[in-house]
Amino acid sequence: MGQTTIGIVGAGQLARMLIQAAIPLGIRVRLLAEHPADGAARVAADVTIGSPADPDLASAFAATCDVTTFDHEQVPPATLARLEQEGRTLRPSAATMAIAQDKQSQRERFAARGLPVPPFAVLVSPEEIDAFGAAHGWPIVVKAATGGYDGRGVWVSATPSEARAVVSRLIAAGVQPIAEAWVAIDREIAVMVARSAGGEIAVYPPVETIQIDGICRELIAPARISGSIAAECRRIAHDVAGLTGVVGVLAVELFVAGDRVLVNEIATRPHNSGHWTIEGCVISQFEQHLRAILDWPLGATAMTAPHVVTVNLLGGPDGRDPGAELPKALAIDGAHVHLYGKEARPGRKLGHVTLAGDDLGSLRGRAWRAAEILTGLPRPTGA
Amino acid sequence: MGQTTIGIVGAGQLARMLIQAAIPLGIRVRLLAEHPADGAARVAADVTIGSPADPDLASAFAATCDVTTFDHEQVPPATLARLEQEGRTLRPSAATMAIAQDKQSQRERFAARGLPVPPFAVLVSPEEIDAFGAAHGWPIVVKAATGGYDGRGVWVSATPSEARAVVSRLIAAGVQPIAEAWVAIDREIAVMVARSAGGEIAVYPPVETIQIDGICRELIAPARISGSIAAECRRIAHDVAGLTGVVGVLAVELFVAGDRVLVNEIATRPHNSGHWTIEGCVISQFEQHLRAILDWPLGATAMTAPHVVTVNLLGGPDGRDPGAELPKALAIDGAHVHLYGKEARPGRKLGHVTLAGDDLGSLRGRAWRAAEILTGLPRPTGA
Repeated sequence: MGQTTIGIVGAGQLARMLIQAAIPLGIRVRLLAEHPADGAARVAADVTIGSPADPDLASAFAATCDVTTFDHEQVPPATLARLEQEGRTLRPSAATMAIAQDKQSQRERFAARGLPVPPFAVLVSPEEIDAFGAAHGWPIVVKAATGGYDGRGVWVSATPSEARAVVSRLIAAGVQPIAEAWVAIDREIAVMVARSAGGEIAVYPPVETIQIDGICRELIAPARISGSIAAECRRIAHDVAGLTGVVGVLAVELFVAGDRVLVNEIATRPHNSGHWTIEGCVISQFEQHLRAILDWPLGATAMTAPHVVTVNLLGGPDGRDPGAELPKALAIDGAHVHLYGKEARPGRKLGHVTLAGDDLGSLRGRAWRAAEILTGLPRPTGA
Repeated sequence: MGQTTIGIVGAGQLARMLIQAAIPLGIRVRLLAEHPADGAARVAADVTIGSPADPDLASAFAATCDVTTFDHEQVPPATLARLEQEGRTLRPSAATMAIAQDKQSQRERFAARGLPVPPFAVLVSPEEIDAFGAAHGWPIVVKAATGGYDGRGVWVSATPSEARAVVSRLIAAGVQPIAEAWVAIDREIAVMVARSAGGEIAVYPPVETIQIDGICRELIAPARISGSIAAECRRIAHDVAGLTGVVGVLAVELFVAGDRVLVNEIATRPHNSGHWTIEGCVISQFEQHLRAILDWPLGATAMTAPHVVTVNLLGGPDGRDPGAELPKALAIDGAHVHLYGKEARPGRKLGHVTLAGDDLGSLRGRAWRAAEILTGLPRPTGA
């Protein structure tokens, strides 16, 4: 066997962490990066600069790789289709990527297969909001089926007029709006699941995601939910892996409301909510993704410690580079700091900190203290 | 603070694993590699090809780095001296590297400071062997103070004539011979210790090294020794870090004979006997080395599991690439495989496998099974 070459389209933090996992396994990585300064491009031995929106470039890139995988979902379907026509191995496939890219088809497919999803409606006019709101109550959630606009894809609307305005703007932008019943969420949960090319499936322990203003700030593993709810979360993730046909790692984001578990969204790739697995599980989501796409045996997903906490490092308003205060943060006992090599911008995910151990309160305290040092942002109330 | 740039002289597996540790910390790594196919050169984003024996090249290389460190000890003292004259920051320093490079000065220095070392004599003629043997008994050990020849540095001689022949060959090759009393070893132990530029010291748990024919085949952590012997090993490592003035990570190899602990050798860099710390300790020897040479706070050296086992992957006689059977080895539950990207040659260290968990016997069995799959070499008797 010659050395295996994996191509990664996109060069953000996921590609960066995939590279870290590929080195010990002797897997050669080729990167298709938009810019030489992208986080993963800075650390990769083999980088092609260009956009996957250029199908000729993407075609030439994939032709040099045994398997091509993805750092993000923003790869034009036409590019994906062409690569598969040319006989390239895409993992996940174009068909699976399409499910991740289109929330409408995702919702419809999941509902048709009996997976629990919030009540939803695919809207053709702003006026349909009124009937949906009357049926399910206010507030309601409006989502962009694809892409979104202005960097957003989800809006919670308290009144019919607010919701109609959002729907009108989406329709005007050529984006399909979806209405969704608002759920009184007790906990938000994510489950990483891997499916190999040969169909082997491995599910990670459910992790609790602490979301503030729609941004995931903290992960707590295992999630503070009952055993039966955790089992339901795992079962759903297992089913989603099967019905999407994903090859690689997939994230399922779930709502827990009372004793119900509802599927919120999925991502067909390694995911922010799986970063805790680097230190927290025997085999990380990144090594697992590589094993899955190469059709190698999947690895153990057991936790390495009773509790694991990850806090995301968001860019603070002062534009501070989290690397500037790194030595101070490393003085915190057991802090594992991961920086993504990205330019600091307010609100941008620039890295994360993970701690593993026995005492959840102490782990959370230390993780947040490290994050505060690195970003200048205080621990938010509610986390 | 701009991004910190570390230069690494040499591009073997230590450099390769330092790169893996540098990525999450956002540390830029520059590599001085003899060949583009060297293990670390294959995965580095920034490689200069050349030899540290070329002082002009080494000088130009170090001038682009905030701190320069080393993958191996084979850097000519003249090169080290020049770089320090030019104001470059070498970590460890030229003075510390000299101690590692010269077993005579090492032994004399340690003995003078009261560290327990086996009885030894610096020889000026083959005939001195007889008196040394008469005083300490046979067999005796002959060592090359620097370098060695024919790829070896240590010979166990059963008789005066055998020992005289070795000493004569060393003297003829211009290498200083040292005679050492042979010790009836119960266990061989290694302790990794880190010392930061500011003088902070962190000691790792003593690890047992299973040596067969002078080659380390397996690591067992923690070492199967009493608490008082373990404390003595740690104390010695702490003292060695102080008296060598090392900045970075240092390995102390020790003999346990009855209730005595003796210093065998040291290496002033990350070391094979510390590879288990990647999965087995909170902060690995590689991240610790980076922290130490950058004068950042040192990290926790506590173990992440009750037992950790590492088995080295040696090249088998059939020249098999261990990557060829990688998927089979990854089917072994909990196996962490690290390949070094080196060309397979019989006896060469091509990688290692680590497992961490509760049951030492099971961990050893799985680690050896993985090694057998990857190398074709059976688990040796005695391991």
